[in-house]
Amino acid sequence: MKTEIIIINKERNVTLTAYTQQVGGKFANITKRPAVLILPGGGYQYCSDREADPVAFSYLQAGYQAFILRYSVAEHSSWPNPLEDVEQAMELIRSREDWNVYTDKVAVAGFSAGGHLAAAAATMSKKRPNAAILGYAVTGHDVKACNMTAPDTTPYVDKNTCPCFVFATRTDDLVPIKNSIEFIDALEKADISFESHIYAYGPHGFTIGNSSALTPGKPICNRAHRWVEDSIEWLKDMFGDFGDGEMSKPKCKGHFSGDSDAYLNLDCTIGHLMRFPEAIEAMGDFAKGMDEEEMLKAVSSMQLKGALRFMKVPQEVVDDIGNKLKEIPNRI
Amino acid sequence: MKTEIIIINKERNVTLTAYTQQVGGKFANITKRPAVLILPGGGYQYCSDREADPVAFSYLQAGYQAFILRYSVAEHSSWPNPLEDVEQAMELIRSREDWNVYTDKVAVAGFSAGGHLAAAAATMSKKRPNAAILGYAVTGHDVKACNMTAPDTTPYVDKNTCPCFVFATRTDDLVPIKNSIEFIDALEKADISFESHIYAYGPHGFTIGNSSALTPGKPICNRAHRWVEDSIEWLKDMFGDFGDGEMSKPKCKGHFSGDSDAYLNLDCTIGHLMRFPEAIEAMGDFAKGMDEEEMLKAVSSMQLKGALRFMKVPQEVVDDIGNKLKEIPNRI
Amino acid sequence: MKTEIIIINKERNVTLTAYTQQVGGKFANITKRPAVLILPGGGYQYCSDREADPVAFSYLQAGYQAFILRYSVAEHSSWPNPLEDVEQAMELIRSREDWNVYTDKVAVAGFSAGGHLAAAAATMSKKRPNAAILGYAVTGHDVKACNMTAPDTTPYVDKNTCPCFVFATRTDDLVPIKNSIEFIDALEKADISFESHIYAYGPHGFTIGNSSALTPGKPICNRAHRWVEDSIEWLKDMFGDFGDGEMSKPKCKGHFSGDSDAYLNLDCTIGHLMRFPEAIEAMGDFAKGMDEEEMLKAVSSMQLKGALRFMKVPQEVVDDIGNKLKEIPNRI
Amino acid sequence: MKTEIIIINKERNVTLTAYTQQVGGKFANITKRPAVLILPGGGYQYCSDREADPVAFSYLQAGYQAFILRYSVAEHSSWPNPLEDVEQAMELIRSREDWNVYTDKVAVAGFSAGGHLAAAAATMSKKRPNAAILGYAVTGHDVKACNMTAPDTTPYVDKNTCPCFVFATRTDDLVPIKNSIEFIDALEKADISFESHIYAYGPHGFTIGNSSALTPGKPICNRAHRWVEDSIEWLKDMFGDFGDGEMSKPKCKGHFSGDSDAYLNLDCTIGHLMRFPEAIEAMGDFAKGMDEEEMLKAVSSMQLKGALRFMKVPQEVVDDIGNKLKEIPNRI
Repeated sequence: MKTEIIIINKERNVTLTAYTQQVGGKFANITKRPAVLILPGGGYQYCSDREADPVAFSYLQAGYQAFILRYSVAEHSSWPNPLEDVEQAMELIRSREDWNVYTDKVAVAGFSAGGHLAAAAATMSKKRPNAAILGYAVTGHDVKACNMTAPDTTPYVDKNTCPCFVFATRTDDLVPIKNSIEFIDALEKADISFESHIYAYGPHGFTIGNSSALTPGKPICNRAHRWVEDSIEWLKDMFGDFGDGEMSKPKCKGHFSGDSDAYLNLDCTIGHLMRFPEAIEAMGDFAKGMDEEEMLKAVSSMQLKGALRFMKVPQEVVDDIGNKLKEIPNRI
Repeated sequence: MKTEIIIINKERNVTLTAYTQQVGGKFANITKRPAVLILPGGGYQYCSDREADPVAFSYLQAGYQAFILRYSVAEHSSWPNPLEDVEQAMELIRSREDWNVYTDKVAVAGFSAGGHLAAAAATMSKKRPNAAILGYAVTGHDVKACNMTAPDTTPYVDKNTCPCFVFATRTDDLVPIKNSIEFIDALEKADISFESHIYAYGPHGFTIGNSSALTPGKPICNRAHRWVEDSIEWLKDMFGDFGDGEMSKPKCKGHFSGDSDAYLNLDCTIGHLMRFPEAIEAMGDFAKGMDEEEMLKAVSSMQLKGALRFMKVPQEVVDDIGNKLKEIPNRI
Repeated sequence: MKTEIIIINKERNVTLTAYTQQVGGKFANITKRPAVLILPGGGYQYCSDREADPVAFSYLQAGYQAFILRYSVAEHSSWPNPLEDVEQAMELIRSREDWNVYTDKVAVAGFSAGGHLAAAAATMSKKRPNAAILGYAVTGHDVKACNMTAPDTTPYVDKNTCPCFVFATRTDDLVPIKNSIEFIDALEKADISFESHIYAYGPHGFTIGNSSALTPGKPICNRAHRWVEDSIEWLKDMFGDFGDGEMSKPKCKGHFSGDSDAYLNLDCTIGHLMRFPEAIEAMGDFAKGMDEEEMLKAVSSMQLKGALRFMKVPQEVVDDIGNKLKEIPNRI
Repeated sequence: MKTEIIIINKERNVTLTAYTQQVGGKFANITKRPAVLILPGGGYQYCSDREADPVAFSYLQAGYQAFILRYSVAEHSSWPNPLEDVEQAMELIRSREDWNVYTDKVAVAGFSAGGHLAAAAATMSKKRPNAAILGYAVTGHDVKACNMTAPDTTPYVDKNTCPCFVFATRTDDLVPIKNSIEFIDALEKADISFESHIYAYGPHGFTIGNSSALTPGKPICNRAHRWVEDSIEWLKDMFGDFGDGEMSKPKCKGHFSGDSDAYLNLDCTIGHLMRFPEAIEAMGDFAKGMDEEEMLKAVSSMQLKGALRFMKVPQEVVDDIGNKLKEIPNRI
C-alpha cells in the first residue's frame, strides 16, 4: 500500500491522505479498484482522527482505495469552502491514473458534520459521488448548531441524488435521529435507492464501533458496529464485486421504481401510471378498480407488478399489460 | 416443548398455537420465559404458514415461548375483529400460569397485514404488548388496499406506544417503504424507543429470509435475514436476558428523552426545556446562547446533556444544572 | 409443525420425539426435507433436555425435520442397546412417508455421551447417517468413564464413515479435547470430509451456546455459539440447499482425495500414485523428482494437482498426465 | 497511520514494513497497542502480496500495530536465515518506543510457508512471540517439499510454546491438512492453549477469504473467511482488550491444566495427580475409584474439577480436596 498526503488547499489546511493498493502482479484479477472518500466529523471545528484511519482500514480490507479528506474547519468552515474541498478531492481521485480507481465507483463516507458534508456532496455537488455512506449525519437544519453557514441538505435530495447508506443510533444525544429519518424520507420521495440502519442505542460518534474506536464506558447496542460490514456488502450491491479482470454487475439499481424511466413499465407506481390515459387503458380491468379515491390513495405508491401479483392476475395478462406500457413514453 | 392449539373464536376460525418450553428441571436457572405472539401476513385474506412456524422456531431457539395467532381474515376481517382476537390472545398468554410467561415481557411480531395488526396492538389496543416487531408492515393508509375497514395505525402512535423494531426492504413492490418510514417518524415524534433496518433490496414477504423460507428466484440482499438475530438481541436489550433465576435488567428504556419524566433533567431536549422559565434560569449562560430563533430551532431536538458535552461545559457546571433541573416539575 | 412422541422401546424407556414441518401448500417449492436426529448427552445416565429442544429449534428454523431420541441410559445403557435404538430411529425416519424426509439426507447430531453415540452411528452402525455432527463428543476410550461397555469409536473410522462436523472447547474439563483431535485425525487418515472447530475456552455441555441454553456464570468464548449456524451451512454444503422443487447439488463431496476412486486421477495423493508403476510413467519428469526418500515423504499426502500447480507445470502437460491416469484402474 | 519500510538485511532483501497508528490525542484511552507481525507465504520462494497488506488492514482495523516481514527467500532461504529475520523483527518491534507496542502482546501471523516460519518462531525462536496465528501452515515434515533445509516444527512444541490459533481448509491440495492436525495434537500434549478451525473446503492460499483477496473461480466454503474476525476475538481473549488507559485482563490463560503449576490444584489432570501419593491421599474416596487400570486410562486426561463435578461430589468436599492439593509441590 502506498501512502500519500496531498495538500488540497494550503491556506485552509486542507489535505487528502491517499491509501492506495496495488493492482496486477499477485492481484492479477484486479485492474482497478473502487474507492471511498472519508469525511471525518468534528462539528466543523476539527476533523476527528477516530473517524479517519479506522474507517479507511475497513474499506482497504475490502479491496477499496481509501482517501481521507481533512476539509476546511473552524475559521475556514464557511460554506461552500468544505464542499469545494470535497469537489477538488473527487476530481483528483477520478483523474489520478496511478491510483487505479474506477471513476464511476467512488463513494463518500461521512460522519456527523462530515456526514452533512457527504450528504451535500450527494445532493448539491458539481462532482457527485456514486454512492454515499452517512453516519449519524447532521443532514438537516440542525447543522446550524455547529456551522451557521452550512445548508440543510434534505431539501436538495432529488432524482439525481446518488444511492445512500444511512445509519445512526436512535439515542444519539447530539444529532437528533430525525436528521436520518427525514433524509431517508426525502430519498424515498425522490425514488432513490438506499439502505438504512437505526440502532436502538449508542452514543454519538461511535465510528466503527469496535473496542479500539469506541470511547470506553458508553453503552452501545451490539448491532451498531455491523454498519461497517453491511456498508461494504451494500457497496458491492451498488458497484459490483471483484471478479476476473473486471467488476461483476451491480445487483441493485440506483432508482427504485420505473417512474423516471423513458417509457412506462411494470415497475412504475400505480399513482404515476394513473396519470396517463393510455396507461389506464393498458391496465384494463385492473385500472377500473382504482377509480375510488380512497383505494387509489391506498395503492398509489405500490408498484404495478406487485399489485398485479397480489391480485393473482395471470402471467399472460401481466405480460400483455407490460408490453403495452412499454410503448407509452414517460413524462416525468 | 408442548404444543397446544386453542380455539379463540370458533365462528371466525381464530386459533392460537402455543409452543411452550419447560422451566426448571435441567433449565434450573429459568423460572419464567418472555414470549412472542406471532401474527402472520396474508393481506387479511389468509394467514401465511411461511410467516408462522419458521418465525416461531427463531424465538423458541432464543428461549422464548412462542405463540401463533391465526386471526380473523377474509369474510371475518372487518375491523375490529382481528384486533379483538389479538387482545384475547394477549390476555390468555398473560394469564395461563402453566405457560410460565413474564407478563411484562410479551412482544408481538407481525408481518405485512399481520404487521399492521401488530402496529394496531402497539398503538390502539386495550391489551398492549411490551414490544412490537413489525416486518414489511402495512402500517399506513395503504392497508385499505387489502382491508377497507382497517385503520391507518400511524396517527395512533403516542407516548403510550411500546418500543418497536421495524424492518423492511426498500424495494418492496407491494407495501411501499414509506409505511415503515412514516411509522418510525411517528415513533420519533412520540419519543418512543425503536430500532429499524431498511435493507437495500428484496421481495415483499421474505419472512425469516433463509433458503427454506424464501420463495426461490427472487433476489434479496444478504443483510435481510439478519433481522431475526437482530430482533432477538433487541428484545434482550428491552426485556433483559436470561440469568440466574431471573432476567437481567433491560439495557434500553422505552422512551428516549426525559421529556415525559416527572421532573426535568439533563436527558430532556433543549426545545422542551426552553418552555420552562425556571429551566432557562437553571441553564444560565448556556440558555442565553439559545435566544436566536435559528439557533434554537437547530438545537431544539438535541438532549441537553449532549449539547453541554459538545460545548465542553465543565462537569461540575453540568452537575449543577442537572441538580437544579431535578427540582422543576415537568408539565408534559 | 406436528409433534409426535413415538415409543421405540418401552422397557428401556426409549422415545423418539418427531417435530415435522409441512411440505407443499405455502411451501410450494419444498417437496421433502432433510432431517437431523438429535442425541442429547448425559454420560449415558440420562438424556439432557438442554441438548434436546434447543438443538431441534435450530435445525427446524433451517427447514429441517428434527427428531430427538431419548436412548437407553442408566441401567439400560449396556452396549449395544443405545446403538440399536439409533438404528431403529434411523429406520423409522427414513421409512415414514408422512414425515417427508429425503432418505439420503439424514444427519445425526450428538453431544457428549450422545456425541459418542453419534460417532458410533457414523462408524459402526448398520443404518448409517449421511452426516454426523459431534459436539464435545467422548469419541475415544474416555467413554469408559461413563459407560464401561461402550466402545472407543475412533478405531472404527474407515472409508465408509460419513462426513463429520466436529466441535468442542479446548478447555473442556470433562471430555478431554484429545477425543476430538484423535477423531479428526482418524477422519483425515480415512480420507473422509469433515469440518472442525475447537474454540479457545468454554465449559463442557454448552449446548447451543446462547443465554437460554448456557448455565449462568461459566465463561465461554464468543465464538463457541457459532457452531449452530456453521453446522447448518455445512449441512447445506454436504446435502445441498432448498431450491425450486428439489435440493440443489452438494458443494462438497464425502471424500477428499481420489485415492478411493475407481481409476487414478489428479485428485489422488502423490504417495498413492507412486505405488503404481504406470502412474509413475504417466507423471514423467515430475515423478523423477520424487525418487529421493525425504522428498517423497514430504509430498506423499499432497494431491498431484496441487503439486503440479505449485511447480507451475503447464496446463497442457497437466491435462496430459490427467488423461493418462484416468486409464489406470485403482487398487485401493 | 505511519508507514515505514525498514531494511532488516540488505544482502538478503529482507524488509520490515511498519504500519503504526497513533496513541493519545483523539485516542485518549489508548497509550500503547498490541501488535501483529505478518509472515506472508510463497513456498520460501517469494513473499506473496496477497498475504501481506490485506492481512495487515484486518488487524489495523482492530486497533493493532501491523508489521509485514518480507523474509529471506529463494537463494537466501537456507535455514536459519528466515528465523533470524523474524528474531530481528521481533526485537525491533519490542524496542522501538515510538511504535508504542506492548512488548508482551506481540503476535505472529503466518501463512503457508510463512505459517511454517510463524510456527518456528513460536516453538524454536530466541525471541518468542506471545501468540501465533497459523494459516494453512506447512508445520510438519512437508515443508521439505519447498525448503529442504527447514525443520519440521511439530516436534519442537513444548510447554514454552505460545498459544496458537490454527486454521486451514480440509481440502487444501498443497499443504495436507494433517500438518494442522498434528500441530494441534502436539499443542494438546504440551498443555498449550489454542483455538482451531478446519473449514470443509477451499483452496490453499485463500488469505483473508474475501472477494478482493481470493483468486476468482475456486470454490470455498462460506465459513472460511471468518478466521479473520475470530482470530481478532481470540487475540482479545489472550491479550486483553482496549480499555480506559490500559488493556483489560486476558480471559484465557496460556496453559490449559494445572499440570505445570508450582503446586498441585483442581485444574490438574487426574493422570498427573495419580503420580503423587500425597495427592492420592488428598483425593480420598475418589482416588480409590481410580485403581482399576482401564478406568484410570479413561479419566487420566480429565481435569479433577470436572470429574468431581460429574460425580456430584459436594462443594465442601471439593474445596477440601483443593485446599489439600495446594499444599503439595508439583514435580513436573
